[in-house]
Amino acid sequence: MEPIIHEIKSWLLEAGEQIKASERQQLTIFEKTNRKDLVTNMDRTVQQFLVQKIAAFDPDARILAEEDGYNELTDLTGRVFIIDPIDGTLNFVMEGENFCIMLAMYENGVGQLGFIYDVMQEELYWGGRGIGVYQNDLQLSQPVNKTLEAGLLGMNGYLFAHNKFNIRTIGEKSMGVRITGCAGLEMIAMLKGNHIGYLSNLSPWDYAAGCVLLTEFGFFYSNMNGEQLAFHGRELFVAATPKAFQQIHSFLEI
Amino acid sequence: MEPIIHEIKSWLLEAGEQIKASERQQLTIFEKTNRKDLVTNMDRTVQQFLVQKIAAFDPDARILAEEDGYNELTDLTGRVFIIDPIDGTLNFVMEGENFCIMLAMYENGVGQLGFIYDVMQEELYWGGRGIGVYQNDLQLSQPVNKTLEAGLLGMNGYLFAHNKFNIRTIGEKSMGVRITGCAGLEMIAMLKGNHIGYLSNLSPWDYAAGCVLLTEFGFFYSNMNGEQLAFHGRELFVAATPKAFQQIHSFLEI
Repeated sequence: MEPIIHEIKSWLLEAGEQIKASERQQLTIFEKTNRKDLVTNMDRTVQQFLVQKIAAFDPDARILAEEDGYNELTDLTGRVFIIDPIDGTLNFVMEGENFCIMLAMYENGVGQLGFIYDVMQEELYWGGRGIGVYQNDLQLSQPVNKTLEAGLLGMNGYLFAHNKFNIRTIGEKSMGVRITGCAGLEMIAMLKGNHIGYLSNLSPWDYAAGCVLLTEFGFFYSNMNGEQLAFHGRELFVAATPKAFQQIHSFLEI
Repeated sequence: MEPIIHEIKSWLLEAGEQIKASERQQLTIFEKTNRKDLVTNMDRTVQQFLVQKIAAFDPDARILAEEDGYNELTDLTGRVFIIDPIDGTLNFVMEGENFCIMLAMYENGVGQLGFIYDVMQEELYWGGRGIGVYQNDLQLSQPVNKTLEAGLLGMNGYLFAHNKFNIRTIGEKSMGVRITGCAGLEMIAMLKGNHIGYLSNLSPWDYAAGCVLLTEFGFFYSNMNGEQLAFHGRELFVAATPKAFQQIHSFLEI
């Protein structure tokens, strides 16, 4: 795996440099489904860049990605790269920070490699099946298996504020709810042991890279019913330490 | 003001070094009013350190601070230092990051100097009346006066999730709600132009330093009724760009 890891890291760092070199004032911003669901020319540029790199590296690989007609695959047969060029686009536009580039490599549906790059902090979280989880060059330790009551929980604001599926109640059983607006940052918070879990409505590119790394650290994840994620369309995403995961599912009201 | 600014900065950097040098595993954690309201030996150590520095620097100054019997003053006559030794104690305990040291200097009730130190990011936000706002050595520019609909809004999770005072509705009129669990980080987010405002239940040490800097950048702040903050006890804190502040107050239901 060494050469491919090295290769993918170089793409992400280069994409990050492109983002940092761009002028936030010069961004072209488009609304997708509503006024809070944004895409920018930079999302598209980064995706095109990564798609080209993948195609040159492995012409047979298939790609699932957030923007521009890459957002559906009927199955995960063969080698599939899953890309979120800018995860947390609203933060990117509003804050110029607190966003990530995410990339995952799956083979026949099994996560092999995951990369989450917090561009402005210059922290690349990466790892894969059997190789552990790293923050840049530092190998991380597996977080403690905390209960729901013992840790902070990341959430989607709408689900929390409207107590959808009893999620507000679940949040209030934890030590505290945090809302970052970026799935990648939530994945990082779990991998560091900062948060015990994360509940949100997500698409495959929001969770693909994170799931590879979460698996490596013994976290559990599922859809709302406790079943495998579909990697197709948007669905409730539940991830947590094994102890908190079981508790969250016992409180979720479907 | 130069010598006193230099002096206070040196205290904060030294306190930050003490925190960074401490072992998180060795923390002694106490519950205050409930299981989510924590104080640690490090909060107390930092406060004692700052109290001693202030007493040596200006024996006549009075002190208002979060811990250990310093948490009430009947008035702000004379020179008053207001300290939050660790703002975001829950984040400090759970994450080892996303907390701040805050210190303000008021004279006869008027904010003169404010300091918010994001210890783990090594970013000291500081400034004062007539001298601007700085991030370490970099002078910041005044953020754009955005409307409520045009920006992200920081909030207290309980107020948001329970729609207290119609705050959930206000949050949903913004571009998005963020919950960081740290007043200092929320102040920083406004000062950088990342967030347009912040709504929470706060005590004087949570807002004293931030208000000095917010004033400098033309932000408005008040209690729930649009009146001056009491600097006494806990109350609803509303801060925002002038445009968003007016909108927020028009939607707040008392």
